[in-house]
Order: sequence, then structure tokens, then C-alpha cells
Amino acid sequence: MNIENYVSDVCKHAQKASRILANQRPDDKNKTLRAMADLILAEHETIKVENIKDLDAGKKKGLSKAMLDRLELTDTRIQSMATGLREVADLIDPVGEILDKKNRPSGIEITKIRVPIGVIGIIYESRPNVTADAAGLCLKSGNAVILRGGSEAFHSNLIISNILRAALKKTGLPEDSVQFIETTNRKAVDHLLHAEEYIDVIIPRGGKGLIKKVATESRIPVIKHYDGICHTYIAKGADLDKAIAIAFNAKVQRPGVCNAMENLLIDKEIAEKILPPLFLKLRKAGVEIRGCEEILKIDPSAIQATEEDWRTEYLDLILSVKIVGNLEEAIDFINEYSSHHSDAIVTEDHYEGAHFLQSIDSATVYVNASTRFTDGGEFGMGAEMGISTDKLHARGPVGLVELTSYKYMVRGNGTVRK
Amino acid sequence: MNIENYVSDVCKHAQKASRILANQRPDDKNKTLRAMADLILAEHETIKVENIKDLDAGKKKGLSKAMLDRLELTDTRIQSMATGLREVADLIDPVGEILDKKNRPSGIEITKIRVPIGVIGIIYESRPNVTADAAGLCLKSGNAVILRGGSEAFHSNLIISNILRAALKKTGLPEDSVQFIETTNRKAVDHLLHAEEYIDVIIPRGGKGLIKKVATESRIPVIKHYDGICHTYIAKGADLDKAIAIAFNAKVQRPGVCNAMENLLIDKEIAEKILPPLFLKLRKAGVEIRGCEEILKIDPSAIQATEEDWRTEYLDLILSVKIVGNLEEAIDFINEYSSHHSDAIVTEDHYEGAHFLQSIDSATVYVNASTRFTDGGEFGMGAEMGISTDKLHARGPVGLVELTSYKYMVRGNGTVRK
Repeated sequence: MNIENYVSDVCKHAQKASRILANQRPDDKNKTLRAMADLILAEHETIKVENIKDLDAGKKKGLSKAMLDRLELTDTRIQSMATGLREVADLIDPVGEILDKKNRPSGIEITKIRVPIGVIGIIYESRPNVTADAAGLCLKSGNAVILRGGSEAFHSNLIISNILRAALKKTGLPEDSVQFIETTNRKAVDHLLHAEEYIDVIIPRGGKGLIKKVATESRIPVIKHYDGICHTYIAKGADLDKAIAIAFNAKVQRPGVCNAMENLLIDKEIAEKILPPLFLKLRKAGVEIRGCEEILKIDPSAIQATEEDWRTEYLDLILSVKIVGNLEEAIDFINEYSSHHSDAIVTEDHYEGAHFLQSIDSATVYVNASTRFTDGGEFGMGAEMGISTDKLHARGPVGLVELTSYKYMVRGNGTVRK
Repeated sequence: MNIENYVSDVCKHAQKASRILANQRPDDKNKTLRAMADLILAEHETIKVENIKDLDAGKKKGLSKAMLDRLELTDTRIQSMATGLREVADLIDPVGEILDKKNRPSGIEITKIRVPIGVIGIIYESRPNVTADAAGLCLKSGNAVILRGGSEAFHSNLIISNILRAALKKTGLPEDSVQFIETTNRKAVDHLLHAEEYIDVIIPRGGKGLIKKVATESRIPVIKHYDGICHTYIAKGADLDKAIAIAFNAKVQRPGVCNAMENLLIDKEIAEKILPPLFLKLRKAGVEIRGCEEILKIDPSAIQATEEDWRTEYLDLILSVKIVGNLEEAIDFINEYSSHHSDAIVTEDHYEGAHFLQSIDSATVYVNASTRFTDGGEFGMGAEMGISTDKLHARGPVGLVELTSYKYMVRGNGTVRK
């Protein structure tokens, strides 16, 4: 197989499908999404057979237990792919929404209308459920999708995408609305990243290495999610009980996710009061505390934090804690060390809260709430493709609306420019 | 001078300024914009002295008359830079607009709010007025700007940016809100395009070569405007008088701009009726007609159009004309050959119009109006930075709103995730 020609064909088919998809009624897309869910359940034994091929190969290759766990498609996980597709079917269709309408003195009427982006390329790693989740969101938002999964999940991804295509065929939508790159050759990724004529946006999902590679090499616009180095700042004006609850929740409730807190800042005026009960509670939950020098003076059992610690997304029960002199120092620190994902202040002081919300340059900024709320579901957007740490096009949770563009429809009556 | 360090310093200063700028009140930004206008008028003799240096160097270098004309800053042009800045001051400030607000069952209140993008890099060619125009739009939208102008306009750009900085200083805003790259060394551009840590978006303004280079090499998201290969399709259901008026206006009213028509499609059913009066009128205005073979059968004096013609933005009194069999053929042709800028249909048939608006994948699609209306001013957006042919973030005219991003401000009361 000539990889370049193969990828180019896939791209052309995707563009063609995208033009048909852009004009589908919500009901027709939803019918397909439900047919996809039905077929996934009906074929769950076939999916498991293919999944076992990947698991066996993974074991032979010596993949870690965590990797193998991510790879495995249990009955529950297959069920939840189907449920996910049905939930996407129930969401409001963003396409066709009128964003603005005006009549101009020249005589033209301008309607700004939401349209699909076109063709979305998704490059992802191990979890095979992404195949169904991402395809569902793309279909609902009227976009054709090209899926490039990790080689370790090749058989699982392939069978899932074939099932999705069968559902498209059955319900009369273009099969090429969902295409999976049927080769593990790495050159395929390079060709995708240079297919700017056909692919409108690339969304990488996976580890930082993958995202960095895609962001560096892509000629196509990328919507990406780097780390979640999230901060909580317990300010001078904080209510201590709320501060402890929020900091504890942000670190401990689910430490392995991007909106969990990694760095905690505490105002020097309240440090001595809040540290003992807070650290006690955190340590009881198994949190290792790394602190700045000021922290170590108050709590000598903390480990000294290095410059590296402030810049690390541990995704684990490790917390770096720093004492800061005032609000401005906290803001400067967060704007420097945050990955611009989610950062919070705890304070009862209205000015402190408002100034923090204004000054922190992150996708989501909080007053008196846990950073754990940054999530499409919690934000009422339904399913999401991830959390964007970019500032252009999509910032924060990427749901259906963020997978759309717009166009201007202009109506005249023989109207010409003077 | 070490170019890399120099560019890196400029970038750091810009990011610092952008954080201060993001929190300025509309009145303070407007006061600065008006001070910029005043100072440009007060210093107009100094501007002309510096401009003459560029003109003299340009003449020695053998620049074309058209290039030298674009370079020249006459009294009228200096006046219009000042007027432009005052007009931007009068526009509505987009920053701080509440885009969405909701209370969630969890107890959090989410406000989606419009914020500046941050740091904008503008890479542009000859016209020195871009320095003031672009800086004005960036300042109003709360963004710091790094300007990199063409070497032939170096002295003109430098004096204008120094005047703008003097106005910033005078009114108490950070001078580094506007920075001009004070070297003509081409390596500076490469460093800018890789400064993804500091610059949030790059906007190239100039010829296709420049834009291609920037789009290919930039690691930073780019908002760009490729060609304007705009189409008009005179459909079966067209009113002939309207069709002639619209096609004539789209081609002749100002042929050198991006929203002028380059390709005209005519439905075969009405071709014999409309061609003679239309071609007569176009030729009287000096338009050279290049046609497909079907056209040549009706009008043997037309020149045969090549594949190249359909893909060329002439920006001149040259028009490529093709007969198509039906609406679908027209749509397919336009989606293939259009630069996705502006395309129009002329028809009285409601279905034809609606289907065309739906199916054409361009930033602006027209029914019964001239493509010449694609323009920030005509769209009621005030001044514009250009017309985006991208689909992500900004599509069509790029005005103040398109120079912004958003963030989510979330308020709780000790709220944690369950």
C-alpha cells in the first residue's frame, strides 16, 4: 500500500461525505447515532474477540498493567459506548442555529449561521472507546471524521469503526462520514498533518508527547489539551472550612484527571492557622506534601519542593504547596506556572475574588469552588471531546458547539455595491 | 544584536503588557486611541521625513511605481490613519461581554465572558498605514501587538509605532502594548513564528507568498486570508436584469480587491439569452472574457479558458465564464474552485437559493447580491483586520469581536464535586 495515496483517498472521501453530512436534518443524524448504539450492543461478542487480539499482542509486547487495563473492552465499557452514543443523540443539534441577523442600509440582509467545521482528524492513543465517543460527537455536529488510533488498539478500533460505518450505511448516511486509518504505519500521521486541503482541524488526544508532536508538525489548525496544572489559592479573606473542603476535593476526589489541583498557594497571613488541619486531612488521604521553604518552617515533615515540582502534572496524590505574600504574588505565580486550564481562589472578600477572576489568564477561573468542575457534563454541555488549553476557537470544554464554525448567508434583491 | 534574544525580549514584554491591557476600562483605551490620532497629526511632518527615506531607498532599489505608490504617506493618508484610530475608539468595546450565564445543579454559577486573546503578532508588507490600523484594532480589543513590517517601509513603520508608543505612555497604558520589530533581519520572523509560549495568534497580511510561508512555518495559530476567488452563478431561475447588474458590479466596480468576482457560471438554459447583453456591457467596461468551450460556441470572440484560469485571482478586468448544466454542477464547481471567501447565486427560485446557501462551503454566500459586500464596514462591524478564509475561530471579516477569546468564570460557595 502506498501510504500517501491511501491517506489522500481517505481525505477526499471525508471531504465529500462532509458536504452531504452538513445538510442532514437532526433526526436523521440522531437515528444513525441510535443505530450505532444498537449495532455496538448486537456485535459486542465480535468486539470482544477483536479486543482480545489487541490484549494478547499487548501482553506479548510487555505493556504495563495500566496500559492493558485502558485497552480492555469489558461488557460494561461496551455498554457505556452505546449509552454515550444515545446521550449524544439526545443533545441539542448545534447546526443551523442563527447567531446573528441584521439588515444593512445597503439593502442586504445578513444571517450568521452555525455550520459544521467540515472534516475533523482525531489522533489518539490507547483507549478504544474514543473511536465511538469521538465519532458520535463529530457526526452529531455534522462533521466527517478521520480516526487514527494507537497501534496497540488497532483491532479494537477497526471493528468499532466498521460497526459505526455499517450503521451509517443502514440509515442512509455516507459511510465515509467515519473513516479509520487502517494501517499502523507512522507515516500516515505525517500525511494527515499535512492534508490542509481536506482536513479542517486536528484534535490530538493522549499524552503530552503526542500532543507536542502534533502541535509542532501540523499544518492544519489544532485544538489541543496540554497538561492540567491547576492551582488553588487560599487568600487572606478565605473561610477556613470552605478552603479546606475545596482544596481537599480538588486534590483528592479524583487525582488522576486534568482538572485536579497540582499546586496550592496559601496567603502568609492565614498559613499558620490553616496548615495544621489542612495537611492533617490531606495526609490522612495519602497525599504527599512538597512545600516551599516557608512551608517547611511551619511543617518540617513536608518535602522541599523544587522548581520542577511547580511545573509537574502529577495526576497523583502529590501536592506542591507554597506560601505567597499577597494576591498579586499569587496571580503572578499562577499566570507563570499554570497550564491555563483551571485555577481557583478561596475568599469571602469580593474585591479579591473579582480581581482574581479578571487577572488569571486561564480557560476556567473559580471563586470558592473546586477546580474539579471543569468538565463538559458539569458545565451542561453534554459529552465533550476534551478540555482545550488553547485560546483560539475553543477554550475550556470542547463540546458540540465547539465542533462547529459559522458562515454568513446574505440575501439581496439584485443588490449591488455603490 | 542577537536576534533570538531580541525577539524573545519583545515577546516577554508583550505578554506582560497584555495582562495589564486585559483589565483596562473602555474609556481608558479610547482615550489612548484618540491620543494616538492627535499625535499622528501633530507629528505628520516627522512621519513624512521618515517616509521619504523609505521612498528614496525604494527608488534606488528599483521598486515598481505601484509599490512606491503603496509606500507613500501623503497628507491625506496620514489624516486617514488618524481618522481610522478615532473610528475604532467609537466602536463598541467587545471585552467583558457576557456570552452565557447559567446556574448548575451542583451549585456553581458559570459565566462565559469575552476576553482579549492576549498577544497578537502581525506580519505585513508594504503599506505603512497597517501599523496604525492594526495597532488600533489590537489595543481596542485589549490585545498587545507585535508588528513586523516589510523592510521597504522600515523607517515609516518605525516612526509611526514610536508615535503610538508615545501616546500609550502619555495616557498611562503600557508602552509595550505596541511593539515594532526594529530590525529587517529575516530571522526575526522565524523566531516570532516559534514563540508559541508568548504569542497567541499570528495574522499575516500581504501577498500569497507571505501567507503561505507563515501558515507553513508557524507553530502559533494563524488567522489568514488566502485568495479571493469569488464566483457568481446565474441560475435557471435568475431575473436577467438583476443578474447582469450583480455580475457587472461584482467584476467591475473595484476589480483589484479580494471580494471581486473572478469566475462566472451561467446555467445552460438561460445562457443564450443572457450572454449577449451581459458580455456587451462587460466588454464596454474593458473586461476580457475567457470562456469554456460552450461559451466559445455562443461567443467566438471569447478567449478559451484554461484550467489555470479557473484557479487564478486576477484582481483585474479579466473574467472566466463557464456554462453549467444545473445547480448541482454549479455547487460542485464552486466548492472545488472557490477560495471559500464569497460566492453568489442569482435566482428568483426559493429552492435554488436556499439549497445554494446551504451547500456552498464558503465564509459568505449570497443570493441576489454582489460578492462585493464582504467587508467589515458593509457588515456593520466597523474596521476590520482582513477577511479570514479559515474556518476555525474567525471566518469572514475579522473585526474587534474576532480578536477576542473567552473564559469561564465560575462562582461557588465552598462548592465541591461529588
